Amino acid sequence: MDVQKELKPYVIGLDLGGTNSVFGIVDSRGEIKATTAIKTQVYDNVNEYVKASVEALQAIIDQVGGIDKIKAMGIGAPNGNYYNGTIEFAPNLKWGRDGVVPLADLFSKALGIPVALTNDANAAAIGEMAYGVARGMKNFIVITLGTGVGSGIVVNGQLVYGSDGFAGELGHVVVRTPNGRPCGCGRTGCLEAYCSATGVARTAREFLATRQDESLLRELNPEDITSLDVAIAAGKGDELAKEIFEFTGSLLGEACANFAAFSSPEAFIFFGGLTKAGDLLMKPIIESYQKNVLNIYKGKAKFLVSGLDGSSAAVLGASAVGWDL
Amino acid sequence: MDVQKELKPYVIGLDLGGTNSVFGIVDSRGEIKATTAIKTQVYDNVNEYVKASVEALQAIIDQVGGIDKIKAMGIGAPNGNYYNGTIEFAPNLKWGRDGVVPLADLFSKALGIPVALTNDANAAAIGEMAYGVARGMKNFIVITLGTGVGSGIVVNGQLVYGSDGFAGELGHVVVRTPNGRPCGCGRTGCLEAYCSATGVARTAREFLATRQDESLLRELNPEDITSLDVAIAAGKGDELAKEIFEFTGSLLGEACANFAAFSSPEAFIFFGGLTKAGDLLMKPIIESYQKNVLNIYKGKAKFLVSGLDGSSAAVLGASAVGWDL
Repeated sequence: MDVQKELKPYVIGLDLGGTNSVFGIVDSRGEIKATTAIKTQVYDNVNEYVKASVEALQAIIDQVGGIDKIKAMGIGAPNGNYYNGTIEFAPNLKWGRDGVVPLADLFSKALGIPVALTNDANAAAIGEMAYGVARGMKNFIVITLGTGVGSGIVVNGQLVYGSDGFAGELGHVVVRTPNGRPCGCGRTGCLEAYCSATGVARTAREFLATRQDESLLRELNPEDITSLDVAIAAGKGDELAKEIFEFTGSLLGEACANFAAFSSPEAFIFFGGLTKAGDLLMKPIIESYQKNVLNIYKGKAKFLVSGLDGSSAAVLGASAVGWDL
Repeated sequence: MDVQKELKPYVIGLDLGGTNSVFGIVDSRGEIKATTAIKTQVYDNVNEYVKASVEALQAIIDQVGGIDKIKAMGIGAPNGNYYNGTIEFAPNLKWGRDGVVPLADLFSKALGIPVALTNDANAAAIGEMAYGVARGMKNFIVITLGTGVGSGIVVNGQLVYGSDGFAGELGHVVVRTPNGRPCGCGRTGCLEAYCSATGVARTAREFLATRQDESLLRELNPEDITSLDVAIAAGKGDELAKEIFEFTGSLLGEACANFAAFSSPEAFIFFGGLTKAGDLLMKPIIESYQKNVLNIYKGKAKFLVSGLDGSSAAVLGASAVGWDL
């Protein structure tokens, strides 16, 4: 292993997002040696996307001494399936929404190195285990709070992929029944409908419409309110904005209490844009968890915010998938 | 391993219940060679309980050729902790409710063989994997439907014990919010409050109180109705009794849809008294699951009833914990 790492000291990480595809060349300590990016969606099909990626990669590969120095590539991608190395019916990818794209295979053939792929939240969990706050932990859950709510679950030191490679969609656990909020997945009451960035904005519009109290948020067009606006207002002491985060955190705490009954993790680790709200969000999560969790689990789990640098965390997570090969 | 099994071809399984403690000596194919039992609660403390157990065991140990033929002992017990071999604060055990009982150690010292212990639902899951319908499966969930609702979760071929040994309490996942039924655990809306045998009886009382339609169940004193009464009435075609099972199955299907988002199991396996209701329960479970589960999981999981013989399943499950030692 160590000899291997000396001969081939780097892996490529690809954080494949709906807008940008960010590549990094990473060493075994999680240092990003070189980075590049392309736009994800300007290509009509996946072959053109891979071709453009490899062209962009060539410059940074040369920078670290050529492809012989690179052990593998890891990809974090929406709807990524680790077992098959495929992206399956990803609604936000022009060249990936209508079927099964064998992206790991395509990159492996183009670069001549092994390539592994998983979904973005799983990549985040692997990244936390390799370089982040989950180092040394065997049982933990990463919850990503972004446009959607994703999750990566680790049990006995292993990522939970399940029978089909799609386990760990905790954003689509139903937390309000019956008559919960409609969710983008076509069902109602999902955690994601409340606790994603868009869920926070929906809560803001609901609170503003059903209540009369003053708020800085009333100066904005309700349709344009984002979770960032809510965070800024809350940071200025706006009571209604603070209550929006309390509501969001309270639901996340309830949900985590249910997740504890599943895998009793050592820690819940939060990742993504919403975590910038800090204690505004984390305090109600922890309070609600302690209130709602089954007695035997009380006071045991840690609640942590990802320790990985926001801008590079997704690339690091993806690269960690490559180290596992 | 095979040589081991020839020299020591048996394990002892103990199904430790609130009323009876049933012991079996089991071979590697899951055949019960000899069996005995004692009452669990007539002993004032755990030392007397272990002494009485060993006395009862002696006769059947002699029957198979003495303790030298026995590799280990496995125990399935309420609130059993695999990591420590302890029973912790088990409300239904006179000598186990007030603290931490090191039962595995006590039996190990008394018998001179290794002893492992886990909770009863985990033992059932290990039993299904060793001898039952889960043979060859790497990802599945066993749900036990008895006085309570328990669960044993297997991920990547391993039981999920979590950070503290208490993972897999799916009976206490909240399925109705807010304002769900009070549960024995002190919280509200737990799966167990609806889908245990006592939950079914509660549903019967609710239906009888809030509805006017005729039912065979109206001939009974509402307070005395059991899930067995409901099953018998449903078996006779009683519409209200059938609807009680539909309601119960529907909630179980919803819950399983949430569990799929966690570990995407190959199968859900139901175990325990309520499964005797057969299709009356299983059909609504499957229908509700297909209706409620996230699209990517649809049509994938199997829904099975335990293939283990009811009376001996718990002993077999416990013995399988011993084989793992």
